[in-house]
Amino acid sequence: MDIDTITAISTPIGEGAIAIVRLSGQEAVPISNRLFQGVDLTKVNSHTIHYGKIIDPITNEVAEEVMVNVMRGPRTFTREDVVEINCHGGIASVNRLLELVLAEGARLAEPGEFTKRAFLNGRIDLSQAEAVMDLIRAKTDKAMNVALKQMDGRLSKLIQKLRQELLETVAHVEVNIDYPEYDDVEEMTHDMLIKKTNEVYHEIEKLLQMAKQGKILREGLSTAIIGRPNVGKSSLLNALVHENKAIVTDIPGTTRDVIEEYVNIRGIPLRLVDTAGIRETEDIVERIGVEKSRQVLKEADLILLVLNFGDELTEEDVNLFKVVEGLDIIVIVNKTDLEQKIDIDRIKKFANGRPVITTALIEEIGIDELEQAIANTFFAGELDAGDLTYVSNVRHIQLLKQALQSLTDAMSGIEDGMPIDLVQIDITRTWELLGEIIGDTVQESLIDQLFSQFCLGK
Amino acid sequence: MDIDTITAISTPIGEGAIAIVRLSGQEAVPISNRLFQGVDLTKVNSHTIHYGKIIDPITNEVAEEVMVNVMRGPRTFTREDVVEINCHGGIASVNRLLELVLAEGARLAEPGEFTKRAFLNGRIDLSQAEAVMDLIRAKTDKAMNVALKQMDGRLSKLIQKLRQELLETVAHVEVNIDYPEYDDVEEMTHDMLIKKTNEVYHEIEKLLQMAKQGKILREGLSTAIIGRPNVGKSSLLNALVHENKAIVTDIPGTTRDVIEEYVNIRGIPLRLVDTAGIRETEDIVERIGVEKSRQVLKEADLILLVLNFGDELTEEDVNLFKVVEGLDIIVIVNKTDLEQKIDIDRIKKFANGRPVITTALIEEIGIDELEQAIANTFFAGELDAGDLTYVSNVRHIQLLKQALQSLTDAMSGIEDGMPIDLVQIDITRTWELLGEIIGDTVQESLIDQLFSQFCLGK
Repeated sequence: MDIDTITAISTPIGEGAIAIVRLSGQEAVPISNRLFQGVDLTKVNSHTIHYGKIIDPITNEVAEEVMVNVMRGPRTFTREDVVEINCHGGIASVNRLLELVLAEGARLAEPGEFTKRAFLNGRIDLSQAEAVMDLIRAKTDKAMNVALKQMDGRLSKLIQKLRQELLETVAHVEVNIDYPEYDDVEEMTHDMLIKKTNEVYHEIEKLLQMAKQGKILREGLSTAIIGRPNVGKSSLLNALVHENKAIVTDIPGTTRDVIEEYVNIRGIPLRLVDTAGIRETEDIVERIGVEKSRQVLKEADLILLVLNFGDELTEEDVNLFKVVEGLDIIVIVNKTDLEQKIDIDRIKKFANGRPVITTALIEEIGIDELEQAIANTFFAGELDAGDLTYVSNVRHIQLLKQALQSLTDAMSGIEDGMPIDLVQIDITRTWELLGEIIGDTVQESLIDQLFSQFCLGK
Repeated sequence: MDIDTITAISTPIGEGAIAIVRLSGQEAVPISNRLFQGVDLTKVNSHTIHYGKIIDPITNEVAEEVMVNVMRGPRTFTREDVVEINCHGGIASVNRLLELVLAEGARLAEPGEFTKRAFLNGRIDLSQAEAVMDLIRAKTDKAMNVALKQMDGRLSKLIQKLRQELLETVAHVEVNIDYPEYDDVEEMTHDMLIKKTNEVYHEIEKLLQMAKQGKILREGLSTAIIGRPNVGKSSLLNALVHENKAIVTDIPGTTRDVIEEYVNIRGIPLRLVDTAGIRETEDIVERIGVEKSRQVLKEADLILLVLNFGDELTEEDVNLFKVVEGLDIIVIVNKTDLEQKIDIDRIKKFANGRPVITTALIEEIGIDELEQAIANTFFAGELDAGDLTYVSNVRHIQLLKQALQSLTDAMSGIEDGMPIDLVQIDITRTWELLGEIIGDTVQESLIDQLFSQFCLGK
């Protein structure tokens, strides 16, 4: 197979100490070698590092001081020959280096093309490839763990197991069709069908039940804060942001504005939605009415409804409870430092089983309980991504839902006494749908579309 | 010497394919090895790459899939043992990796500390270290070339040559002092002093003459666009931005908003200052008067004064000419597609030798000439960083100016027939000042302060 050599900048664009231009393909080493002044890269051992200079072949000038990593396939990310040229991490520097590599005959990689080659060359399956991207985009440790497990092939193995069971079932059905004269075999197959499909059904159902959590870990929990003026909405915002700082900022010097919209609450990435909108909630309800406000708030995964401990419950408050009926909310009764005027029992009735937390946010009282309540709302008990296989990818969730549907069809077919070969069609369909998750039965165009969502250089 | 092992994230923070955690110091390899599952890193050859997994020693879980580069001193960036752990480039990923490395006993590096160690361990001198940072911050190819030459030691070598000459001169002077009985030696020394100091003086002067250009390449040319309403200021802005796009965007997919404030005009990074302010220029002149407007505009390196070809010169236009008197301007007579009403000769008189360009910006006429004029204003003829040694660093410029002053003192001392040992003091001072550029005679605190301006992980 004649595959061209691709290249891209594989480090984030920005000012950094090191930037990497990566090449993959048959010509990766020769192309690098033509630009490199130092040792002969075509003759070095695989997986070695070489110091030298990149020379612009046209001007004969030194273009960069570099370290070159030479890795020969198949022990590489793409299974092809891979060269990583490490240069001083300036934007102009790394761009010029990339231009020189392109001029020597490499082609600019499409987003995700390195990972796509790893997939096409059989090093990883599709769900693992998707996990690579999730890992890059992960916003908290727990989200990262989900991606790591998936990359490690945990989901792939589970899916493969389910597919294997379906395949065996289909095989048994075929035995039954081919040898209809054995009455006892048919009876066994029917029981087995019920049992096997039930087993697979429950496994898929379990995966889907966890999917909401996986999706939250992957994409963050969009959270709205609502309440009358002066109940402490801004204090709540500040408390959540200050207590936890912006996400992934445990280490000094690594913060950037771009990631500060997320707050890490016990491993859950919380995305606090548009504070301007939040502050105006009370007016929105008045202006556009309860039903329309509900529609607006429905887009949030979680609503924090703030009340004032030192005020009686007003009609506005009651209106807000109507607005959030049926949605995931946590009620926060703030300002416990004031004299109590609010009727907590009445609030609990309105809350209808959903958590009610009392706080004095400015005095930093109750924040811990609030965070626990947030975690509990979506992850009953301890949140532990360690032992669970989460499905977090929307594509996977869709496929699992379809698989569940076609399995339901098969099962009701069995119960209705449908001809066994018709039931078999639905089971085979289920098997195919599961296959799409790991990339066994997907179409070329889907693959292209999937990898195009990757970042450049991966 | 007992130096601790430092670590930092060495790639820009953001979503990328690869991120690197770098370690430098005696414990770099043992620390990495304690976290690594794969081969025994303490036993591998230097400058080799190893695939494996990073295991969290507390939970025993896989924290990352990595490639580890092991490089033993002194053939490394810092001359110490260096390990670079390459992981999938997510923010959460690389932060966790860094945390694990810190937990194993490495210390978080201060900004620039890797480069500082390269300097302290004698691999590079101070001007080379500063060039490393300039290279990272370079916004155009030409700016990068200046940094590369400096990193390559070109400025260092020139400075060393000048210092050597001064040193020889001082030595001769000492011979003269020690053996005053030889009349003919004194006479020779005097001539030689004049000649030698003159030579060095001219070299320093030449460097300083180029310094303005170097500084522009390094920091960008702040440019203001002024003119009456409707003369085409926005079109000019658009033309400059569109024709050249935002800086370093020759390669698709590498653009980021953060760098779009610069426009690359023939290798010169142009920073177009605050367009809001620009649009209001005419009002500013009216409101705050000519003299105060001058003060505001003085902060720009270049002013583009736009006039309307289809209008007669107004009093406002004339006022603008007064405002920019003595500043670097280019006059742009725009809208040549209209019937001419403006008196070009009169404009040329006002321009007083400074370039006057006629354009029809919306029809894309004259943009090329304009760009050439911008380049010419600061780089007479061809801009070629290739063959020149530019001083671009403010610290270096200050030191060169001081060196020039103390050399001037020495020279006028010689001419005034001052005692030769007093002249010698000024020459020695010049020698010291030049030494500060390359870090031969700088104090610890200055070194700390210099490296603290670096980015983290370098």
